[in-house]
Amino acid sequence: MRPLCGVLANIQLICRRFTVKEKFSRKRQVLLSLKIKNMQNPSFEEVLVPLRKLAKEQGNTVQKLKDTNAPAAEIQKAIQALKLTKESIAEKEQEFASNIMKVDRFKMEDLLKRRFFYDQSFAIYGGVTGLYDYGPVGCAMKANLLQIWRNHFIIEENMLEVDCSMLTPEQVLMASGHVDRFCDYMVKDVINGECFRADHLIKAHVEKVLNSKKSLETCQELTDILARLDGFSGEDIANVIKKFQIKSPTTGNNLSEPVPFNLMFGIQIGPTGLSRGFLRPETAQGIFVNFKRLLQFNQGKLPFAAAQIGNSFRNEISPRQGLIRVREFTMAEIEHFVDPSEKAHPKFHRVANERMVFFSACNQVDGNPPSCLTIGEAVRDKLVANETLGYYIARVYQFLLKVGVDPNKLRFRQHMSNEMAHYATDCWDAECYTTHGWIECVGIADRSCYDLTQHSKATGVRLVAEKRLPEPRQVEMVRCIPDKRSIWLKFKADGANIIKTLENLDKEACLHLQKQFESTGHAIVDLGDKCFELENNICKIEKYMKAEHVEEIVPSVVEPSFGIGRVLYAIFEHSFRVRDNDEQRTVRNSEFVNLKILCKFFIFSIFPFLQSWHPDALRSKNISHKVDDSSGSIGRRYARTDEIAIPFAITVDFDSLLEPHTATLRERDTMHQVRVPLSELPTVVEDLSSGKVVWSDVMKMYPVFEQQEGTVKK
Amino acid sequence: MRPLCGVLANIQLICRRFTVKEKFSRKRQVLLSLKIKNMQNPSFEEVLVPLRKLAKEQGNTVQKLKDTNAPAAEIQKAIQALKLTKESIAEKEQEFASNIMKVDRFKMEDLLKRRFFYDQSFAIYGGVTGLYDYGPVGCAMKANLLQIWRNHFIIEENMLEVDCSMLTPEQVLMASGHVDRFCDYMVKDVINGECFRADHLIKAHVEKVLNSKKSLETCQELTDILARLDGFSGEDIANVIKKFQIKSPTTGNNLSEPVPFNLMFGIQIGPTGLSRGFLRPETAQGIFVNFKRLLQFNQGKLPFAAAQIGNSFRNEISPRQGLIRVREFTMAEIEHFVDPSEKAHPKFHRVANERMVFFSACNQVDGNPPSCLTIGEAVRDKLVANETLGYYIARVYQFLLKVGVDPNKLRFRQHMSNEMAHYATDCWDAECYTTHGWIECVGIADRSCYDLTQHSKATGVRLVAEKRLPEPRQVEMVRCIPDKRSIWLKFKADGANIIKTLENLDKEACLHLQKQFESTGHAIVDLGDKCFELENNICKIEKYMKAEHVEEIVPSVVEPSFGIGRVLYAIFEHSFRVRDNDEQRTVRNSEFVNLKILCKFFIFSIFPFLQSWHPDALRSKNISHKVDDSSGSIGRRYARTDEIAIPFAITVDFDSLLEPHTATLRERDTMHQVRVPLSELPTVVEDLSSGKVVWSDVMKMYPVFEQQEGTVKK
Repeated sequence: MRPLCGVLANIQLICRRFTVKEKFSRKRQVLLSLKIKNMQNPSFEEVLVPLRKLAKEQGNTVQKLKDTNAPAAEIQKAIQALKLTKESIAEKEQEFASNIMKVDRFKMEDLLKRRFFYDQSFAIYGGVTGLYDYGPVGCAMKANLLQIWRNHFIIEENMLEVDCSMLTPEQVLMASGHVDRFCDYMVKDVINGECFRADHLIKAHVEKVLNSKKSLETCQELTDILARLDGFSGEDIANVIKKFQIKSPTTGNNLSEPVPFNLMFGIQIGPTGLSRGFLRPETAQGIFVNFKRLLQFNQGKLPFAAAQIGNSFRNEISPRQGLIRVREFTMAEIEHFVDPSEKAHPKFHRVANERMVFFSACNQVDGNPPSCLTIGEAVRDKLVANETLGYYIARVYQFLLKVGVDPNKLRFRQHMSNEMAHYATDCWDAECYTTHGWIECVGIADRSCYDLTQHSKATGVRLVAEKRLPEPRQVEMVRCIPDKRSIWLKFKADGANIIKTLENLDKEACLHLQKQFESTGHAIVDLGDKCFELENNICKIEKYMKAEHVEEIVPSVVEPSFGIGRVLYAIFEHSFRVRDNDEQRTVRNSEFVNLKILCKFFIFSIFPFLQSWHPDALRSKNISHKVDDSSGSIGRRYARTDEIAIPFAITVDFDSLLEPHTATLRERDTMHQVRVPLSELPTVVEDLSSGKVVWSDVMKMYPVFEQQEGTVKK
Repeated sequence: MRPLCGVLANIQLICRRFTVKEKFSRKRQVLLSLKIKNMQNPSFEEVLVPLRKLAKEQGNTVQKLKDTNAPAAEIQKAIQALKLTKESIAEKEQEFASNIMKVDRFKMEDLLKRRFFYDQSFAIYGGVTGLYDYGPVGCAMKANLLQIWRNHFIIEENMLEVDCSMLTPEQVLMASGHVDRFCDYMVKDVINGECFRADHLIKAHVEKVLNSKKSLETCQELTDILARLDGFSGEDIANVIKKFQIKSPTTGNNLSEPVPFNLMFGIQIGPTGLSRGFLRPETAQGIFVNFKRLLQFNQGKLPFAAAQIGNSFRNEISPRQGLIRVREFTMAEIEHFVDPSEKAHPKFHRVANERMVFFSACNQVDGNPPSCLTIGEAVRDKLVANETLGYYIARVYQFLLKVGVDPNKLRFRQHMSNEMAHYATDCWDAECYTTHGWIECVGIADRSCYDLTQHSKATGVRLVAEKRLPEPRQVEMVRCIPDKRSIWLKFKADGANIIKTLENLDKEACLHLQKQFESTGHAIVDLGDKCFELENNICKIEKYMKAEHVEEIVPSVVEPSFGIGRVLYAIFEHSFRVRDNDEQRTVRNSEFVNLKILCKFFIFSIFPFLQSWHPDALRSKNISHKVDDSSGSIGRRYARTDEIAIPFAITVDFDSLLEPHTATLRERDTMHQVRVPLSELPTVVEDLSSGKVVWSDVMKMYPVFEQQEGTVKK
């Protein structure tokens, strides 16, 4: 019996298993199975894996007993044991599924929009799909997230940060392969022309059918389609649309044949209209085209990493899902250049014990669940291709936890061969579980030497590093020595060009010339706009030996690539809660808790019931804060500040007039309050902001304040 | 006699004056006068203004003596005094001009390119004009500059920072006026089609002619053209090109008629090609379209400011001048929304004594020099329109000094009526003097209520704030009450629409309807696609009174808008030096000194001649550093790190092996070194980085290290 929890878990088996527990309706089973297959996390797996192993052993035992014609009672006993194990697996899965599904997305999106964390761009003009504006809190969170990213990656590894143009000429993206291959398949409503992304249409259709149809064979086929969808050709897509008679979801009209649609925004640079370009679809190319300068900045040495934070653009066919699929987005990308023969990483030992969930390509294909391993084990077992790739996977894991991603909703999924770029040798996505399913937030790929090679080919500029040889080696060289006088006499004005070309021929071209001379007595030289026939005696091909002290290598590139909006969205979902029975907050009860990346921005709210204490002390310390001097009650003000997750609040009230002058300092998540002398407040505030003290320290230092949040003395 | 130092200084007068001092050649005089007229700064003006005043008085005295037929000796004496004063003015101007012109731009650009502060984008593909990539040092400086900007403006004023889309639908930029008016005039080479920006061509031509021609009348006319160029129509441009027979500067071919060229990059959003848009030409519009949400975030109260940092795009016709005129650039913009009747600023008194150079529109037109005033005086004298605008001018001044702009190369120039947008009430540019002349780095404009009004008109969404009235007021209201039954009977299917339209008519429309009924007995109602004729009795116009507690106001906007690349460029020029006779640095002698915005990024260089001290201590404190473990001599390593302006260097050498273990710590600008125990190094480093101690403190704490920089013990 196969374990049941992979993305490609066999629906048939899941359905069969659930017949064990009659209390689940058929429909609910299918739904549950779909949810379970979309969710794995380390702590759940730690419980489930041994149970599944036990069930497998028990199944084997039953089979063995049957095969050996054991006594019926013994067989019955073994079957009973197996049944019990299966029941507890089903119970656990049910429990985990309900546990993980509790985010109320509509409540959350209402809060995000209402308090302007972010919202659709140009809403007063009707909005544009796939474009979002970040409001004050969202923007502060994003800036803070990026600052943490800079500290975690750039400063830690001494990376070279660059800031490159978004406008990109066509030749660059031709070389990178984007002009030819950066496409999605699109189908059109044949009546009203509405466009749809074909794979999303198929996915939605398949999931709808899976939720309604009962035929297990159909389920099997549909699950198979979902698994292979990323690798589908236009023809495959056309076949599926035809077979399942998929129509436009908005009108029910027929759909056109799928056509590839390039996702880059085209632009014309300059006034002539002759210089075509695109908005960059990723920031990486800006680093590759600067490779030589960066290598030089690093004094010619490998390995080194460059990083870039900036916006990229994709003209999505029909963006949905809020921040997850957008037309303009902030990326943070790292390109780590490394000698292809030395992919060990000197700091790997520091992260080797980080334990996380790996969902290998094999397990996906075989329908097996992901496994929980240390990165050390994953590299040792060749699950992850090399130490450098492994080091970055672990660093990404540490970063995501640092900024507030729930480790129980995080996994690393390996690309299957049909979804991986043809040049990549290994690629893992850090996926976060959300109400939209598992979404890719970070891609960590070993891109081999593809990009540098492509740009070298396109420009003729050698994008290579020099590697000192252990000892010099003798290399056979070949050069062409033209008989300049003869050439001048014969070719006149073209002579200079021909001589230059001959002198610059590389080894291969010299040997080719020699071959032509030897077989025909003459040779043809191509000067671009013209060709010339040369006689045998017009030049000499000479071989000689040269000592080489270095060899040229094209570095491999390991690339962690972050979708910042997606990481932010995952953090929102992972920290969103609806408070139960919260009598103190009558106004609203949904909020974000423990939003780690909010620290440093809007860290304090200030409620100046009394105008005598000015927040200048905060300003001079560059501590961001929000003053709420509205006429609302203190309870309403707390609710408002809680919603946007400001961690601390200072209330200067009428008691502050009394000697000694004090103010209330309140922590958001615990709602505990202390009373702090006004004179000491700036220091406390600075220490909390810098993390020098934590809230529990402050609770010990000052008297607790017991007043109800709903009232304030006036 | 008029003072001589304004941008529009009368060339004729300058030329005449210089005949006093025969040692200047005619050509040199013209060149010098051009340079002087482009340069004013407070300390120079402080010297020159009293001298000019004296010369004027002396001139008056001479005239008076002549008019009153005074004795010849007395007149002669007065003329002699005047001559002496004029001589000292000329000497001073010569001194200042040579002083300010000493930046060697070619040496500086060589350094910027060689050490990859920034360089042309896609250089290996031949580059694209007007696009630049920032390398590691430039990028760190830019990030730091933006952080200082955030602290100085956003945190200080509790501004609401937002992060909006760059892709912008056409309607938005139609409303803002950019689709119709955001153009430059372009002329084409009639043979090869090369495009030129017409005003730049004229300016270059005029300056060339000014440097060669001697006719004072021509000089006068050309200077006049330069002054009015910004306001030229297409016809004006065509006339100048014809009159001066301006040709293509590259081929000498004739030029086409000037045509307006819109500077925005057009794009198509989505796959249908129906949704036209542009890359934003400024970040401001993103704030305006979010006005309602931001006002709500601020609990409905004015004034408040929103800010945004992000890239904008302008499809320049033929960009030159490096970072100053580019196609893609980072802006930082503030939109301060304020009640138009309350433009006093509560914090104005804090900046009122800041003294800076103001170059008013009047002084520009009259050819007078700029004046040195406090912002308090400027607002009091109505030179600057209001306190809010004045407050931001002073804050911009403080910011620019903070990040390293030379106060002697900074002035605030008021827009003349021909260059100011028609809606703006007052506009000042913070201009920095560079080898390219005075360049606009920040614009500070009072845009009145133009933008919000335009977007309100285009969308029908009322972008207004509510202002509580001191006491409620009675307002006459008018509404239209349709006779629904009659309308239904008469207009059938259209009835619903007609009723809705009538019920929603505003006061003005109701009164217009009534007027039609009264004069003709019927009225025409426009429903967009169709018009309907209504009889008198089909609706009733009713007047009634309503008590209003608030009034709606459209806020005025004061906008400081920063071109970050330009500010950076000015800082580069203002801090670039070529060291004289510097024997210790044999490698290179050009560098940036006192680059304030570099602090916190690459603050330390580390030269580990010995591998035993790891920079982990720096990393854990998020202090950026650069390790140079090349094989170069210590002198060569210092030179390399000095070039990219890293303020401190740590050398761990073979002496560090001896007890007590120590390392050398060196400060860049003074080149002084001390020897610090390895155990204390992390703390010293942190304190220097945070500014807790300065270098002079460190010099007192540890023994000075006297070793030559060119050698190191091995």
